[in-house]
Amino acid sequence: MSVSAAADRSVCAPLPVLGRDVLVPLVTGGEAVYAALDYAASAPALQRVWDDVAAYAPYYGSVHRGAGYLSQLSTDLFENARSTVSDFLGCRTDDQVVFTRSTTDSLNLLAAALPQGTRVFVFETEHHASLLPWERRADVSVTYLNAPRTPQQAVDTLEQALAAREPYGPALVCVTGASNVTGELWPVRELAAAAHAHGARIVLDAAQLAPHHPVDLAELDVDWVAFSGHKLYAPFGAGVLAGRADWLLAAEPYLAGGGASRKVARRTDGGVDVEWHDSAARHEAGSPNVIGAYSIASACKALTEAGWDTLVTREQELIDSVRAGLAEVPEVRVLSLFGDDAPRVGVLSFVVEGWNSSHFAAALSAEYGIGVRDGLFCAHPLVRTLLGSEPQEPGECGAPEAAPGERSLNAIRVSFGAGTPDEHVERFVRAVKELVADGARWNYQVEDGRCVPARRAV
Amino acid sequence: MSVSAAADRSVCAPLPVLGRDVLVPLVTGGEAVYAALDYAASAPALQRVWDDVAAYAPYYGSVHRGAGYLSQLSTDLFENARSTVSDFLGCRTDDQVVFTRSTTDSLNLLAAALPQGTRVFVFETEHHASLLPWERRADVSVTYLNAPRTPQQAVDTLEQALAAREPYGPALVCVTGASNVTGELWPVRELAAAAHAHGARIVLDAAQLAPHHPVDLAELDVDWVAFSGHKLYAPFGAGVLAGRADWLLAAEPYLAGGGASRKVARRTDGGVDVEWHDSAARHEAGSPNVIGAYSIASACKALTEAGWDTLVTREQELIDSVRAGLAEVPEVRVLSLFGDDAPRVGVLSFVVEGWNSSHFAAALSAEYGIGVRDGLFCAHPLVRTLLGSEPQEPGECGAPEAAPGERSLNAIRVSFGAGTPDEHVERFVRAVKELVADGARWNYQVEDGRCVPARRAV
Repeated sequence: MSVSAAADRSVCAPLPVLGRDVLVPLVTGGEAVYAALDYAASAPALQRVWDDVAAYAPYYGSVHRGAGYLSQLSTDLFENARSTVSDFLGCRTDDQVVFTRSTTDSLNLLAAALPQGTRVFVFETEHHASLLPWERRADVSVTYLNAPRTPQQAVDTLEQALAAREPYGPALVCVTGASNVTGELWPVRELAAAAHAHGARIVLDAAQLAPHHPVDLAELDVDWVAFSGHKLYAPFGAGVLAGRADWLLAAEPYLAGGGASRKVARRTDGGVDVEWHDSAARHEAGSPNVIGAYSIASACKALTEAGWDTLVTREQELIDSVRAGLAEVPEVRVLSLFGDDAPRVGVLSFVVEGWNSSHFAAALSAEYGIGVRDGLFCAHPLVRTLLGSEPQEPGECGAPEAAPGERSLNAIRVSFGAGTPDEHVERFVRAVKELVADGARWNYQVEDGRCVPARRAV
Repeated sequence: MSVSAAADRSVCAPLPVLGRDVLVPLVTGGEAVYAALDYAASAPALQRVWDDVAAYAPYYGSVHRGAGYLSQLSTDLFENARSTVSDFLGCRTDDQVVFTRSTTDSLNLLAAALPQGTRVFVFETEHHASLLPWERRADVSVTYLNAPRTPQQAVDTLEQALAAREPYGPALVCVTGASNVTGELWPVRELAAAAHAHGARIVLDAAQLAPHHPVDLAELDVDWVAFSGHKLYAPFGAGVLAGRADWLLAAEPYLAGGGASRKVARRTDGGVDVEWHDSAARHEAGSPNVIGAYSIASACKALTEAGWDTLVTREQELIDSVRAGLAEVPEVRVLSLFGDDAPRVGVLSFVVEGWNSSHFAAALSAEYGIGVRDGLFCAHPLVRTLLGSEPQEPGECGAPEAAPGERSLNAIRVSFGAGTPDEHVERFVRAVKELVADGARWNYQVEDGRCVPARRAV
């Protein structure tokens, strides 16, 4: 494995990313430029993001009360990152941008900040990060909505559930912008309108949407949005929750500690009185992840400057190319809730008749240098619905090949974005066709829960 | 401000850090190499840590279920980082290493994992991150212990409090290893013995200890230890909680989401059943901060390889030099709980008679290029005790100069470590002497809550 500086074969990607020239060994001999097609889990860093972080790193300093030049520079940089993210998301004047560690963290923060007695409505099709944080609050009730099969059905299902709720108290709808399994876009604006019509608020899980499409809070009329840096080409441990300040400021701080506390004093009875901040800092206890926040801001700028029209058009070409290629393979079944015509981002899951998905994914890696993902994608109920099966343990390789015609028990996901050159998706389509037509050229076995090449060839 | 590659004036530092050649402008004209003396808030990245991160960054990939080569490499790297940290901390066989975002996060996680009815004992002298997380649990009671004035008094105070507790149920002691205000070492081993003798457990806040001294869980016989990457020369948004697995595994996951959940399924009644992981992953929901964890592991290796004897001896020379220099200035009062002879790390707070601390810190920055910190250091009760005063709002500059003889209402903190060359502390001591003898050469004013140079010179 080495980085080849000489041979840049990624000229077609609209935005250069780190790792674009990394060579990986093939089990069948030789090397290939790694095709990172697991953007939906973690995207490579944009070169621009890396360059920005590298340029800043020598100037990194303690933020907030540091009196030194670099402390003040770092504090400004951190707060400017907040403004950049606010602009990127089209935040309203009173919205707050809280830096978290990830979408998961953002939604757990919002769950902790819900008013007592809030009723949460969430489709079973959500990623676990959107599905699970709500029920942890004993004083919050959750209604899980069945998977809709059309965008309109999603809106209707939500409206009915909201209308039927009793008592009529605070309510929150949590919905994904783009499915992390199918890549399909959800009717966010319509769901937001439905939520508001029924006196509910709505949070948008934009983990899969923000890297691929513009997200504008004001325009979508959602109350909050959450996303992760590591899916937005900025893998430095930060995420964002942005939106309405009122519930956030009324809530107890997410974490207790410095940064969130304005004033702490012993009481005469021996206890401790705390006065918490009433800004975003309230939920950002501890030293902020300055590099993480800055990297997100850098990515926001890079995407904005590249232009969404260009990025979306380009990504649509890749989507069309992958879908057209897979459509030529009758053994491939692409998973979909909303059908072929649904608009989507560059995330697509499928099963291959006669193949165990882990085996197939392992062969894509070992024989073609292509990195996809197999499993249930932290969205078990959705994948179960789409496969129409009881899933086996996630990612278990089991007997590598299911009997031909047998339903696969997990799926394969391919995902891409602004750093993906044509060659990656072309190679992927070719690899799928070859594997289906000719079978794997190597044997595979399970080791430590991973499906990996066995010692000997077929 | 520019990075001067030519003039490396940091030859005396045992471990090179980023930013060692950064030049900052002086209000009095010219430039100076920035003297980062706020390590206790955030230390610069070790050059080695940066180099490791930069070398890995092109190979960054999605972890866990990613089937690609870089995903498997990144997963191994992440889990190897866990092993490295475990070795660094002298973890016992059954201990778990959980990657968090910071010490604050680690202690909030532990607070969330306490068994119902736990009684927590914590000295009022702790940083807010150690002081405040416990009382948030309605079913946990907290006893705040008064500031001891000797290490032995700390042990006696704790023993009395533990012995007097009723009922005799689960108890936790939380104690700092080295004070973030005075730098003084706390008698951790003795406090651990006292805790265990009284059937309590103990967590060590090693945020200020781990960067300066070896921390060995087994040898100290503490149950958990928490520290932050950004104070350990690895400012990439990660921290650590390491220690006993039982309470952690018995607790609900810290965050709900993917990664922490092994299996999720709809129930026939419409609800959702979740089976959580019973490993460190249980408390690491969401995509892990791979770069953050790796950077911490890199720092652990760099410190270990440099050798603690070398690092501690070197740091002690800096401490002695600063203390000897300040002792020559009668107007300087160094803050201390345990007295002059107490062993300490390179963290030291002081006030200067006749000076507002924010003003003094601003002058150190603007006229000497020295970055220290002023305020109450997220340890309000401790600083209040040490100053013997009601503190004003943290960091308020107010009238820049208090009347001579008047007590300062906040303090100045200077802190350093493995990247600090002699010249920085020499310049600091000289600056203190000059400012006290001759006054500031510039005027200062408050802008946006910061004490900054005014437009005109004195």
